[in-house]
Amino acid sequence: MNEPFPYPESFRMDDYPTLQQIKQAKDRLGSLVIETPATSWRDARLAELIGGDTEVFVKLELFQVTGTFKPRGALNVMLHLEKPQLERGVTAVSAGNHAIATAYAAKVLGTTAKVVMPKNANALRMKLSRELGAEIVLADNPHDAFARVRQIEQEEGRTFIHPFEGPLTLQGTGTAGLEFVNQVPRLDAMILPIGGGGLCAGFGAALKQSWPDIKIYGVEPEGAPSMSLSFEQGKPVTLDGIDTIADSLAPPKAEPYTFSVCRRFVDDIVRVSDQQLKAAMRHVFYGLKLAVEPAGAAATAGLLGPLKENVKGQRVGIIVCGTNIDLDDFHRLIS
Amino acid sequence: MNEPFPYPESFRMDDYPTLQQIKQAKDRLGSLVIETPATSWRDARLAELIGGDTEVFVKLELFQVTGTFKPRGALNVMLHLEKPQLERGVTAVSAGNHAIATAYAAKVLGTTAKVVMPKNANALRMKLSRELGAEIVLADNPHDAFARVRQIEQEEGRTFIHPFEGPLTLQGTGTAGLEFVNQVPRLDAMILPIGGGGLCAGFGAALKQSWPDIKIYGVEPEGAPSMSLSFEQGKPVTLDGIDTIADSLAPPKAEPYTFSVCRRFVDDIVRVSDQQLKAAMRHVFYGLKLAVEPAGAAATAGLLGPLKENVKGQRVGIIVCGTNIDLDDFHRLIS
Repeated sequence: MNEPFPYPESFRMDDYPTLQQIKQAKDRLGSLVIETPATSWRDARLAELIGGDTEVFVKLELFQVTGTFKPRGALNVMLHLEKPQLERGVTAVSAGNHAIATAYAAKVLGTTAKVVMPKNANALRMKLSRELGAEIVLADNPHDAFARVRQIEQEEGRTFIHPFEGPLTLQGTGTAGLEFVNQVPRLDAMILPIGGGGLCAGFGAALKQSWPDIKIYGVEPEGAPSMSLSFEQGKPVTLDGIDTIADSLAPPKAEPYTFSVCRRFVDDIVRVSDQQLKAAMRHVFYGLKLAVEPAGAAATAGLLGPLKENVKGQRVGIIVCGTNIDLDDFHRLIS
Repeated sequence: MNEPFPYPESFRMDDYPTLQQIKQAKDRLGSLVIETPATSWRDARLAELIGGDTEVFVKLELFQVTGTFKPRGALNVMLHLEKPQLERGVTAVSAGNHAIATAYAAKVLGTTAKVVMPKNANALRMKLSRELGAEIVLADNPHDAFARVRQIEQEEGRTFIHPFEGPLTLQGTGTAGLEFVNQVPRLDAMILPIGGGGLCAGFGAALKQSWPDIKIYGVEPEGAPSMSLSFEQGKPVTLDGIDTIADSLAPPKAEPYTFSVCRRFVDDIVRVSDQQLKAAMRHVFYGLKLAVEPAGAAATAGLLGPLKENVKGQRVGIIVCGTNIDLDDFHRLIS
């Protein structure tokens, strides 16, 4: 897909979501999204694993409408559309969570969504998108998917809603970070999952501008390290292949604006294996009783694994998000 | 067990936990417990089941240390013990969650717990209690269990910590209600699970004194209706038998003080079947991604079932609590 994203005319690639823009986004979103809760996480097993002197605070973004942070970005984009444009509806490509969020956003804003999903997409997520009124178009492969969505844009005048790229999307994801700043004591570090990087960029922007000394750590699956490779190469890269159980953290490539904002606010990115993701899912289940998809446990996997020493004795924030998994899949993955 | 509970000398059975006492308990508990979060619960399936105009707010007490509200009461009792008494340690009878809470309370207060558990108690809960340092004594049956605990009290000078009866326990459980009052908009109704009634009495007392117009509804398992039978008979009753999957909501009898406080603050009690509890567990899993034991879904079962019409179009609070279930058991119960 070439240049899929319509950057605003006045836009400069080195812009970033300011605290003021994020606050405005929060006001704009209003009650269309939930101000999700945060909690302190203390249990004896966690203390054994990371040391009893590390304080962990969790943003429970999985209680967001649709189960993920995705509606924050999609809605913030769609709330900026002119009325006739909104009325023509929206379109998106997604293997799941962004599809559900786009369907939800279209529904609450009184318009329609036509979403292209790979034919092997998770059945539960397809069902949830349909239940929210989206029309689903199945595609044989990613190439086909992007061709279909391009066609839908042209023939039906629908607006393409990107899953993570663009200033309005990042202002939207930033609202979760802004909430967290008001919910927990000043943190030393924050650990965020990275797929396309939209959550990490927006959330990280809100935290780093509020608490300049905080360290922002990103966590990527080993089998889909688009952002850490982009950091290494100094430019957004396209992956040759993807191999991870964290299907929600596996876009084919990094995009320039999100890459630029991550570079500004993210101190380091670590990678976790599928085994580490599964262990983190088990730990989130036993410690918090939350059944999350692999992506939803990625920050925890970073905390328990490669970042354990970095945050030792500190106040560290993580996010638990991404819950669109059915019980059988969950049981199979962590048993 | 005759008169197991040492009511304070100045105590009158028609006392109840005042808001001031509950506030003092909250200060006393301090950071030994977590101020658990609350969230708004909105999803399309829930709206279909109870109507889109009913607003649901959830107290996420399952994020409490040890996974249940139980430490609030146990700690408030133990924080009132004189130092020599505390040093001699505590004892309790419990099939699980109260055992874990008592073990936790003893550990953080620097003393020891010796807990009598039925030999068929849930293995996970037994393990969690042991991990927190409690010594577990196994009993063949409830009669034997109470004999053993009586013996432990006499021989070792340990203080018996009741799972739900007594003013200090109810002031402790009331702290969860006090938190909820500060976390959500003014509610029309609150739905609370009833086992011994300790949570319902304390939580209900905090809400009804804060918002006098609120309706407080209790939910009991059909197979263990000690409190609703006590309401019908006007006095605390002992059950002939117990038959429910909600093992955390199945004490053999109601106790006088908790009964009296429930009578003062609870407007109505409804009963739910095992099938309704399982359906509620499934719904909590799909809607909130929380894997809770049957007792933890009891308020939700009331909301989806017998109380649906009572709270239609209202702002209603529920509590999700009680999470000490392992994945295989959970999968088996709701599959």
